[in-house]
Amino acid sequence: MRELGVGILGFGTVGAGVVDCLQTNSDLIAERVGARLVVRRIADLDIESDRGVTVAKDILTTDAEAVIQDERVDIIVELIGGTTIARTLTLAALSAGKPVVTANKALLAEHGDELYAAAEKHNTDLLFEASVGGGIPIIRALREGLVGNRIVSICGILNGTCNYILTRMELEKLPFDQVLKEAQEAGYAEAEPSLDIDGLDTAHKAVVLACQAFGNPVQMNDVPVHGIRGIDPMDIEYAAGLGYRIKLLAVIKHDGESLELGVHPALIPQSQMMASVSHSFNAVLVQGDQVGETLYYGRGAGRAPTASAVVGDVVDAARNVLAGHPRRVPAFTQQSIPVVLRPMEDIQSRYYMRFSLKDQPGMFAQVAQILGSHGISLASVVQKEARAGAAVPVIMLTHVARAGAVLDALREIDGLSTVGAPTIWYRIEDFGQ
Amino acid sequence: MRELGVGILGFGTVGAGVVDCLQTNSDLIAERVGARLVVRRIADLDIESDRGVTVAKDILTTDAEAVIQDERVDIIVELIGGTTIARTLTLAALSAGKPVVTANKALLAEHGDELYAAAEKHNTDLLFEASVGGGIPIIRALREGLVGNRIVSICGILNGTCNYILTRMELEKLPFDQVLKEAQEAGYAEAEPSLDIDGLDTAHKAVVLACQAFGNPVQMNDVPVHGIRGIDPMDIEYAAGLGYRIKLLAVIKHDGESLELGVHPALIPQSQMMASVSHSFNAVLVQGDQVGETLYYGRGAGRAPTASAVVGDVVDAARNVLAGHPRRVPAFTQQSIPVVLRPMEDIQSRYYMRFSLKDQPGMFAQVAQILGSHGISLASVVQKEARAGAAVPVIMLTHVARAGAVLDALREIDGLSTVGAPTIWYRIEDFGQ
Repeated sequence: MRELGVGILGFGTVGAGVVDCLQTNSDLIAERVGARLVVRRIADLDIESDRGVTVAKDILTTDAEAVIQDERVDIIVELIGGTTIARTLTLAALSAGKPVVTANKALLAEHGDELYAAAEKHNTDLLFEASVGGGIPIIRALREGLVGNRIVSICGILNGTCNYILTRMELEKLPFDQVLKEAQEAGYAEAEPSLDIDGLDTAHKAVVLACQAFGNPVQMNDVPVHGIRGIDPMDIEYAAGLGYRIKLLAVIKHDGESLELGVHPALIPQSQMMASVSHSFNAVLVQGDQVGETLYYGRGAGRAPTASAVVGDVVDAARNVLAGHPRRVPAFTQQSIPVVLRPMEDIQSRYYMRFSLKDQPGMFAQVAQILGSHGISLASVVQKEARAGAAVPVIMLTHVARAGAVLDALREIDGLSTVGAPTIWYRIEDFGQ
Repeated sequence: MRELGVGILGFGTVGAGVVDCLQTNSDLIAERVGARLVVRRIADLDIESDRGVTVAKDILTTDAEAVIQDERVDIIVELIGGTTIARTLTLAALSAGKPVVTANKALLAEHGDELYAAAEKHNTDLLFEASVGGGIPIIRALREGLVGNRIVSICGILNGTCNYILTRMELEKLPFDQVLKEAQEAGYAEAEPSLDIDGLDTAHKAVVLACQAFGNPVQMNDVPVHGIRGIDPMDIEYAAGLGYRIKLLAVIKHDGESLELGVHPALIPQSQMMASVSHSFNAVLVQGDQVGETLYYGRGAGRAPTASAVVGDVVDAARNVLAGHPRRVPAFTQQSIPVVLRPMEDIQSRYYMRFSLKDQPGMFAQVAQILGSHGISLASVVQKEARAGAAVPVIMLTHVARAGAVLDALREIDGLSTVGAPTIWYRIEDFGQ
C-alpha cells in the first residue's frame, strides 16, 4: 500500500494527539484512504520531554525547515500556534508546494489573506478544520455539505473556557473570579486567560467562519468584541428566572445587503438547542436559505478532539495528493456576496437591561418614559427586592430595537440622579423563535 | 465558465426543490465550484403539472433512459423513490459511467451492496447525503470529518414524522391516534403512515449509517425494529415526571467486538441535547474514539432541506468530474472492523417498566422479588394512584441489565395473577451520562 509522509511542526498537546490518533487508528485510516499515513518528522524546540506517545528518536528535530524540505514528507501539520514563526513556516511549506494543515485560528484571522493567496499561488492545500470548534467538522459543512446555500447566519459558542465558566457560574451560583481561578487550577483556563475570556479567541474563529461563508476577507478590526469578564452571577440568575441562559456568542448574520458581525455575551431562550450547550462543549448554529437551521455540536478543544479534526484534514490533503489534484475545494474562494459591515448602531435586537434604581417615587416611570421616547418598547419588566441600602434592581426585556437607540437611551438613563450604577445590558438572541 | 449538465429523474417535491436551489443560487454555486451546474433534462411520468419552478418545456421528458444517455448530462439525480424503477435506473446510470446522487434510503438499505459494487465497477460516484437526516451533512461528517475515528456509537432521531407526533403527544397530552390523524391532515404524515411510524424508514437510515461507519454490509433483516404506534401518552407523562423524554431512536453501537443495532422508542434524559430535538427536526449523535461526542441537527425532510443535501452531493460529483478523478471518497469502503451482531438478549441497557398491578397486599414485593431473582436492580420506583377500578400503575427504572434477563423476568411477572395487563417497557438511553 502506498505511504504518505506527514511532518508535524509543534509537538505539544495536540501534536502528540495527532501522532496518537494516526498510530491508534493506523489500519482503519489506511483502509479508508487507500494509503498509509506515516509521521516521518516532528519538529519542536523540546525534543526530550515525554508526550505520552512513542515515536522513534530519530524523527524528532529542532529544525522545522528541515521537516518542510524533507522529501519523504508530503503533508505538513502546523501546530506551533502564534502568528510569527507559525506564519513563516506555513508560508515556507506552501512555497514548497506542500499542503498545510493547521489548527491556528489566530494565524488565519490575522494573516488569512496572505496565506490563502500563497496556497493559490503554489497550487497546494491549506486546511484548517481544527481552527474552529475543535473536533466539530464545521468548516467542511460550510464548504461542502451546505455549498448549495446562501448562508443567512452563523451563531457559535466557540470558546470552551468561557462556556465552562458561564455554566459553572449558573449551576453553582458562583462569582466570575472564583470560577476562573478554579478553572485555571483545573487546567480548563490558561494562566493568562485574556485571549479566551475577553473574547478574542472567539473573534478569531468568527473571522475564519465569516470568510468561509461569504468568500470575502473579513478583518479582526471589523469585529466588535465583548468578553465575559465581570459578568455578574446576579444577571445569570435573573436571566434564568426569565427563561434564558447567558452564553458568549459569535454572531454572523447576512441579510443579503450587509453583514452583522460581533462577539458578545447574549441571552438565549432555554428551549433552544444552543442554550443546552454546557461546560466546555462548543456548538455552531448555521442558517442556510435552503437547509434552514442546522446545528453542529461537540468538544471545541482538547488533545483528541482537535487531533480528530487535524487528521480529517490530513486525510483530505492525502486524498488530493493521491488524486494528483490539489485545491479540490480551495482554502478561500472569492464570492460576489457584498460584505458591507452593518454599522453597530443599526443592528436590530432584543435587549436585557438591569437598572440599578434608587428607591424613590417615580423612578420607574422616568426610565420607561426615556426608553419609550427612543422608540424602545418593553416585553417584560421585573422589579426585584433591594438588599438593605442597595439600589433596586429592575430588569426589563425589550422588543426588537435599534442598537443606536438603545445606547442613546441608556446614556440618558444612566445620567439620572435616581440611577445608582451604570445599567447592565445584554442582547437577546432568539434565533427566530 | 465551464458548464456541467445535471439530469433529474423524478420531478416531485424534492426534484422541484433541487431545480429551485440550482436556479436561486446559480451564481453563488458557480463561484464556489468553478463551473456552472445546469439542469439539462428532467424525467417524470407527469410532465404537465406546475411544480412552482420555471423550466423550459423541452427539457422535460417521460423517458428516464433518454436522460441517462444524454451526452449533455454529466450527473444524474435519482429522486423517484421506491426500490424497483429507481434501482434499474440507478444501475443504468452507473453503467453509463455517470455519477448518481440519490436521496433514496430504501434503495440503499435494500440494494446497497449491488449499487456500491456497480459504482466501483464503472469507476463512478454514488452519493447519498440526502438519504439520511435530510439537510444535515451527516454522511460527509462520517466519511470525511471523522475519518480519523473509530466510530463507537451513532444514535439518531431520523424520522421527522415520528418526532413530530411524539413532540405533540408530550406538549399537548394527546393520544397517538389523534395526533397521527391531525399530522396526516396537515401533511406531516403520509396517508399510509406505516413506513414512518412503524420504524422502517428509520431502520433504512440506520443501515445506511452503519454501513458507512463500519465499512461492512449490514442487512435490513439484522435490525430489530419497533415503531411508535400505540405509545400511551401516560408513559410520555410518567417519563417526563422522571426527567425523561421518549424519542424514536436508531441505535448503533460498536464495542470493538460486536455491533448493537436497533430501532425503538427510548427514554432520554431531558438534560441531553438529543432530548431537545423537537417537532420534525432530526439529529444524529456520533461518538468517535478520538472526537468524543458530536451532534448534528437540522430539518430531516422537506423540499428545500433535502434539496440542500442533494445539491451538496451534485457539487461533490461535479468537483470530481472537474478534477477528472471520480470516487475520491468511494460510496463504500470495506473495512476490517468485525461486524458481528450482538444477540438481542445480550444487549445491556437501563429500562423503564410500567406494571399494571391489581391492588392487593404483597403485589409490589412479588414484582420486585422476580426482578431481583433475574439480577435486575432498581434505580427508582413510583407508584401512581389508580383510577377507580383500574389497575395500579407502578413505574420502575432499572439499573443496567441484560435484555435477556429483562425479557425473562417480564414474562414471569406478566403471568402473575396480580398483574392486570402486559407490562409496558422501554429502554433508557443515557448517552453515557
